[in-house]
Amino acid sequence: MHSYRVAIVSIGDEVLNGDTLNTNAQWIATQCTRLGAHVVEQRTIPDSVSAITATLTSLNPSVELIITTGGLGPTHDDLTVAALAEFFGDELVEDISTLEYLHQYAAARGRNMTERLRKQALVPSSARVLPNRVGTAPGLLFARREGASVVVLPGVPREMEAIMTESVIPWLTEQIGTGGYSVVRERVLLTAGVPESELADRIEPIRSQLPAEVDIAFLPGAMTVRLRLRARGNVDSVEKTLDHATALLTPLLGTSLLSDRNERLVEVLQRRCIEQQKTLAVAESCTGGMLGAEITSVPGSSAYFLGGLICYSDAVKIHFGGVRPETLSTYGAVSQQTVEELSRYIRAAYGSDIAVAISGVAGPGGGTVEKPVGTVWIAVADRHGVQARKFLFTTDRQTNRTRACAAAILMVLERLQSD
Amino acid sequence: MHSYRVAIVSIGDEVLNGDTLNTNAQWIATQCTRLGAHVVEQRTIPDSVSAITATLTSLNPSVELIITTGGLGPTHDDLTVAALAEFFGDELVEDISTLEYLHQYAAARGRNMTERLRKQALVPSSARVLPNRVGTAPGLLFARREGASVVVLPGVPREMEAIMTESVIPWLTEQIGTGGYSVVRERVLLTAGVPESELADRIEPIRSQLPAEVDIAFLPGAMTVRLRLRARGNVDSVEKTLDHATALLTPLLGTSLLSDRNERLVEVLQRRCIEQQKTLAVAESCTGGMLGAEITSVPGSSAYFLGGLICYSDAVKIHFGGVRPETLSTYGAVSQQTVEELSRYIRAAYGSDIAVAISGVAGPGGGTVEKPVGTVWIAVADRHGVQARKFLFTTDRQTNRTRACAAAILMVLERLQSD
Repeated sequence: MHSYRVAIVSIGDEVLNGDTLNTNAQWIATQCTRLGAHVVEQRTIPDSVSAITATLTSLNPSVELIITTGGLGPTHDDLTVAALAEFFGDELVEDISTLEYLHQYAAARGRNMTERLRKQALVPSSARVLPNRVGTAPGLLFARREGASVVVLPGVPREMEAIMTESVIPWLTEQIGTGGYSVVRERVLLTAGVPESELADRIEPIRSQLPAEVDIAFLPGAMTVRLRLRARGNVDSVEKTLDHATALLTPLLGTSLLSDRNERLVEVLQRRCIEQQKTLAVAESCTGGMLGAEITSVPGSSAYFLGGLICYSDAVKIHFGGVRPETLSTYGAVSQQTVEELSRYIRAAYGSDIAVAISGVAGPGGGTVEKPVGTVWIAVADRHGVQARKFLFTTDRQTNRTRACAAAILMVLERLQSD
Repeated sequence: MHSYRVAIVSIGDEVLNGDTLNTNAQWIATQCTRLGAHVVEQRTIPDSVSAITATLTSLNPSVELIITTGGLGPTHDDLTVAALAEFFGDELVEDISTLEYLHQYAAARGRNMTERLRKQALVPSSARVLPNRVGTAPGLLFARREGASVVVLPGVPREMEAIMTESVIPWLTEQIGTGGYSVVRERVLLTAGVPESELADRIEPIRSQLPAEVDIAFLPGAMTVRLRLRARGNVDSVEKTLDHATALLTPLLGTSLLSDRNERLVEVLQRRCIEQQKTLAVAESCTGGMLGAEITSVPGSSAYFLGGLICYSDAVKIHFGGVRPETLSTYGAVSQQTVEELSRYIRAAYGSDIAVAISGVAGPGGGTVEKPVGTVWIAVADRHGVQARKFLFTTDRQTNRTRACAAAILMVLERLQSD
């Protein structure tokens, strides 16, 4: 029983030269892996007929499916469609349903049908058209019995995801389900507070006891390390295999283990606050709202998150954050005293059970000898009082802000634990 | 004169199966493109000796340089290093300076040198060691006169970027500069308010007047479209070529053109606010702090940004946002009246020249027939009064929040323009 093998090809000069971050490949890979397919390679290639046909030829013998994104849409010269027609020996024909859809699309926006738009209704004769309900260029499916099948998608992420979800995933689910392939399942354990190499040393003694088909990957994040357990095998037994592996690892991870159900750090925060019926408010200086944005990125966060203050300027810290002018002039904005006053005041003013305040030197400028770039003070106020801690991160502005948000969440989790 | 061709290989099962977003490839590609190299392919491959050697063999004939990331570090079995030794026919030798560094690294963290750590000092005999000053596994450079050179880097982004910046980029700059290769230069024009296909139609008439070596790519973003002009050629003339192309395009883009110097939308906002000496404050409901985070991601934002209110709950809108309880009960939180009251109040309370308020239904829940998911009201208050506008975005929470932030910035820019 071998796996259903997939290759993902991203077509686009703007991805190749670094102008655009390739989120499509990750999204598609995640969907495929969830369905039990095995992504064996990803490639990014230029917008050229020769590159496209050479890549399809090269990958064809070693996979069941090639999924391409990009090279379709109103400002491309339809190179991808031309290359596919050539690869499969097809003619180009006008697809009626796509033509009708494009007429309605143009009319709804008060525009005429243009030559450029009309060209997007031309498809290779052996392809099945996959409707694009959020853009103009349709997707294509070449379902083949011999050699790799090919799915062709637009590069715009929303359009690609819509076509994948509506048309490709159901087809792929059926291919994998009825073809007798092995499946892959995962379990992700979220840990914090123990460095990656120490975690590796901790689990080393039991590695030989783990089932042979379980693979462990260490995925470091901001202030966290995820352990990704993956097992491939028979659909009826893989979950039990993962349960067994998780049970072996859990005691070795101890208090560093925050979650065993593939949660983000902020989802652990939400779960624990809601379980313990605690509300939360924030006061953010150097993070500027990033913590609030992270918290509210999770649907349902209104069940515990009230909001907070973006106190970027010192004046706002004083007028709306309860920080005394003398505190600022004596200790500065990046200090234990300032974050303690902020968190205490916000907790009282907003009426939340917990309040967390962050103030630091994000960089690249603003550092001093005593408070170099990367210095961040964080305070958490709850019914027991206030605790503050100083961190020293790095020299990179984005890293400092991201780590400060993670550190703030970890400090709140600590207080919830000991409440 | 041909280009210096580069292939980027990302090694890692966690990238292949979608668990991890591949930001390394984009970062490296951007650096290479800036130096004038031509990224001809990117691949993501599994953590296996056979995949690594097969990929190096496959790419070797067609590029000057292969850059790999991943497969190095304390929890990998050093497969990458083993595969390279095999590919180049090297022995593994212990690098003294790396060994010393690892001793100090362990000691500084109060740990012993372990066997796992020590193994990272083993390097192929023909490699030049590239020091890793932020992690443990060193990078490697195989500089070859015949066949592709190979650079091997760890997968952790901070470590990879540090080694690239300190060791690889200087070496690569020299290779390209002394090898008589053509260079690539770019100009990025940021536009808003005109759909991609209309922009394409607008510039169509002058496309034939553009210099032949200029390539234009349309890169759609949240509420914006970037036009990326790229020219390859002689280092002395490419910038003039781009100036000429930009001058031809500018009149056709009209008021849709926000920037011709490769700026992000929020950087345009910062530049214009500082030029016009206007301060800004925000009130964010559904975006939860994302707009403040975006604004403060730019160094120097304290010159114009004061801070604001994350008014996620209705109570916070009333108690700290100046929204009247009757307004909420009559019109609801997502309404023209609510955002007008918020923006007016925050402007007065914070003493800013401009205040922007955002309130919407981010989704996936919370939508109604009158206010479906994706409905967002945004108001901007300045000395002339308040203007509010309603948007209807999509069904995706993240997209709605991201677009709301972009729409808010565009509304502020509009007010600055007409001030």
